[in-house]
Amino acid sequence: MNGQKNTEKYVSAATIKRLPRYYRYLRDLLDRGITKVSSATLAKLMDVTASQIRQDLNCFGDFGQQGYGYNVEYLYNEISDLLGVNESYNAVIVGAGNLGRALVRSPMFARRGVKPIAMFDVEWSIVGSNISGIPVLHTSSLAKFCKEHDVHIGVLTLPKQHADAAMKSLIEVGVKGIWNFTSIEPGELKNQVIVENVHLGDSLMTLCFRMRDGANGTTESNEDESEN
Amino acid sequence: MNGQKNTEKYVSAATIKRLPRYYRYLRDLLDRGITKVSSATLAKLMDVTASQIRQDLNCFGDFGQQGYGYNVEYLYNEISDLLGVNESYNAVIVGAGNLGRALVRSPMFARRGVKPIAMFDVEWSIVGSNISGIPVLHTSSLAKFCKEHDVHIGVLTLPKQHADAAMKSLIEVGVKGIWNFTSIEPGELKNQVIVENVHLGDSLMTLCFRMRDGANGTTESNEDESEN
Repeated sequence: MNGQKNTEKYVSAATIKRLPRYYRYLRDLLDRGITKVSSATLAKLMDVTASQIRQDLNCFGDFGQQGYGYNVEYLYNEISDLLGVNESYNAVIVGAGNLGRALVRSPMFARRGVKPIAMFDVEWSIVGSNISGIPVLHTSSLAKFCKEHDVHIGVLTLPKQHADAAMKSLIEVGVKGIWNFTSIEPGELKNQVIVENVHLGDSLMTLCFRMRDGANGTTESNEDESEN
Repeated sequence: MNGQKNTEKYVSAATIKRLPRYYRYLRDLLDRGITKVSSATLAKLMDVTASQIRQDLNCFGDFGQQGYGYNVEYLYNEISDLLGVNESYNAVIVGAGNLGRALVRSPMFARRGVKPIAMFDVEWSIVGSNISGIPVLHTSSLAKFCKEHDVHIGVLTLPKQHADAAMKSLIEVGVKGIWNFTSIEPGELKNQVIVENVHLGDSLMTLCFRMRDGANGTTESNEDESEN
């Protein structure tokens, strides 16, 4: 758990950022019963160059065979392993509103090796209920719960005005990762925890700006934007 | 509507990507009744350098006065205008499941000048109902509805296996922007429409990978990852 993967080859930050996308495309191929794929086919699917594919995949293992293509399952498993999909992380979701409920009901967590074990909210009318089998507890018991359970990830889906306190509380009890859907950012706390932000409002604004600006194309989440 | 903003100065792509973040921080300052802000204070808040702030803000207008700081409201309004927040776009949400419902219930759309006018789903048991005042229609009427109404944005929150058909259908009837929450990507269609992807699963995987890798810090959505 949380152990550093012993990768013999250096994997660049740029490649790592692309790995979840490879993972997604490879899973899709597997779902379709496709067992072998050439770098050219994968490149066409993913809209990148074949040489980019070869460069990315070669740098963390010898997955392909010249003239034969990649073994999809093997590649998928290796990338899953590298990404830690086969680990098991416990998560708490702070904020049992619409977004929190939508996330906990989706199969997303289970597929990525993350197990939601509790939701927290300040709304007494829902405290004591459960959503998709996950109990909703009162936010005042968040720190105590995290100390008593092995919580690795905190998901912040609560209103902005309470987000800062929740983030601090999670860090204090030793949570290692925060999946942050609120508009706040960790600021100086970023040295104490790993934060992955999903700023949906920013994404919608970017779409509107680009529509206005008139340039076609696609943009993508999950780029590292940490400054300096 | 959709007109090119007549900006006299060139705004770099890197600056544009940062604008939604400026917008968010400035709105927060306004909410707190703060009317003036120095580049140093804004820099500390946003965890970037003051020179970065000055460079970003100077390149699209003379917002600041030496030794006085920025007028928060003026800056907020200018950025809002540049980002198109004061435009009004009509949106349809394809997929009235948990995520679609969570989005339509949030104040996010209204704040960004986007108005959801209908949701679509294949589930007859919810067709005819409404969610936060937005009617749920059957997906088979999507194209007809878009032709009859002035729909600018399609939000894809439906299962992956139907996403491709929905995207094609939206493009065919002239929708200009797609906010895509599905795991599919536009591929060759990207030349016909503006797509902003929110791949939540990729984001969660990136968090897990970084936790495993042991590096602290923060990453951010909304980076342009279009290849080549």
